Amino acid sequence: MILINGESKEHIEISDRGFQYGDGLFETIEVRDGKAVFFERHLERLKSGCDRLYIPFPDGQLLSLEAKALCRQWPSAHAVLKIIVTRGTGGRGYRQPDVIQPTRILSLHPYPDYPKIYSERGIVARICTTRLGLNPTLAGIKHLNRLEQVMARAEWNDSAVQEGLMLDVNDRVIEGTMTNLFYIKNNSLYTSVLSQSGVAGIIRGIVMTISVDHGLSVIEHLFTKNELLSADEIFVCNSIIGIWPIKQIEAMHFSVGPITKSIQIWLNESTSKTAWLEADKA
Amino acid sequence: MILINGESKEHIEISDRGFQYGDGLFETIEVRDGKAVFFERHLERLKSGCDRLYIPFPDGQLLSLEAKALCRQWPSAHAVLKIIVTRGTGGRGYRQPDVIQPTRILSLHPYPDYPKIYSERGIVARICTTRLGLNPTLAGIKHLNRLEQVMARAEWNDSAVQEGLMLDVNDRVIEGTMTNLFYIKNNSLYTSVLSQSGVAGIIRGIVMTISVDHGLSVIEHLFTKNELLSADEIFVCNSIIGIWPIKQIEAMHFSVGPITKSIQIWLNESTSKTAWLEADKA
Repeated sequence: MILINGESKEHIEISDRGFQYGDGLFETIEVRDGKAVFFERHLERLKSGCDRLYIPFPDGQLLSLEAKALCRQWPSAHAVLKIIVTRGTGGRGYRQPDVIQPTRILSLHPYPDYPKIYSERGIVARICTTRLGLNPTLAGIKHLNRLEQVMARAEWNDSAVQEGLMLDVNDRVIEGTMTNLFYIKNNSLYTSVLSQSGVAGIIRGIVMTISVDHGLSVIEHLFTKNELLSADEIFVCNSIIGIWPIKQIEAMHFSVGPITKSIQIWLNESTSKTAWLEADKA
Repeated sequence: MILINGESKEHIEISDRGFQYGDGLFETIEVRDGKAVFFERHLERLKSGCDRLYIPFPDGQLLSLEAKALCRQWPSAHAVLKIIVTRGTGGRGYRQPDVIQPTRILSLHPYPDYPKIYSERGIVARICTTRLGLNPTLAGIKHLNRLEQVMARAEWNDSAVQEGLMLDVNDRVIEGTMTNLFYIKNNSLYTSVLSQSGVAGIIRGIVMTISVDHGLSVIEHLFTKNELLSADEIFVCNSIIGIWPIKQIEAMHFSVGPITKSIQIWLNESTSKTAWLEADKA
């Protein structure tokens, strides 16, 4: 089921600027037992992305109601809720319309059947050839211009490799194609600065907060592939997979370490404490 | 009228990757008296963009037939033909489908009513704050990830300013929001290198060729705003406007010089020699 501006539809106008220019944003949200996890944080990020792109933020209550209506369709399923907001329809040309009427699209998708072993024993990652461009105007936000990720993900077809890590054009490791990246070195947690490229994920933010809350030092900085490969532990995260330790990058092997396991536990606690609940269950 | 994969429609599936990720390309083509100008060159660039993004190129003959069918709707109008090709529909996630069935969309639009004075007396340009990111994977091609241009074009609303010039994150002047940029200094023609950012326009390529043919030196290099402002003549170009001299950038004034005027004449000659003709006029 797909809701476009509140109506059940599967098609969008060709003149929608989301299609013409990737002129919009999206959120990908885990749904467990009819509950959209960290829903409020996703809405906050969507609002902050809209502010950055000067797209009027659709009514948050409306988005909540529509999200609930969708989640109610599969009340006991594990699912993915995707929200897209675009600058709406417009004429040909980059200039935005004088009056912007954003398009909002909510859709529910099956949860991908990732083996549980990925979060328990870790995954294999590769280093992508495709680089992330540097762009402070767009860095950090989850906009619809995602060709870099598409090109990076098209680099491999080997199902033994679960994620590709992306460097920027200055040889700094930034993130995975669909995940944020952390490493642990001497009991401190490191992740990339996202002021020039990358997407500031919801789980990335939560991992940083809960780690600080539990007494870890958390450092955002720019690091090279060699610095990454000298780490004690490495993991990737996003809203759908949670945390996957990395057990191998190319020929280098890593163990699933104690700090990664602790952060997984803290994240699970945080998730169950703050999951968004349907108020008006039928 | 819009043709989507040969059928008259105005809507596209939400699951089209053009909408989900800007995973596609486009061409914007001038139509004069039912003839699509430089059509073959646009098709060539579209094909080369498809190759770069690993999107199977739709049948060129099919695209020609569909373009002709559209142009026949407005046989004597000045119009704009837009062709979009995307990676087609797909599931959620960046990974491309195992079998890619590209979507092709052709649409005809009114020609924008730019005053003739722009090409004769020149336009006013500004320098945009929004920077172009550096990305060799995507540089040069006319893909659907156009948020940088959207953000740059959103910087001004003053109808006295016709174009915004964009610098990259390294302070090099690259192009206009919707145009390529040339300047003339000591009788040589200069334009930016587009290996890290920018769109390699059809008219840009033709301007370079015809200028060399007429004995001008043409130099592609990276230049700063100060180098640009010390030019003898400056102009921008694209497939819809042709060539617009720049008469003013911020407080600096420029005259519409003899070399720009010559290139305008050469471009007009080239256009009338090579315009794509409908073979099967009704």
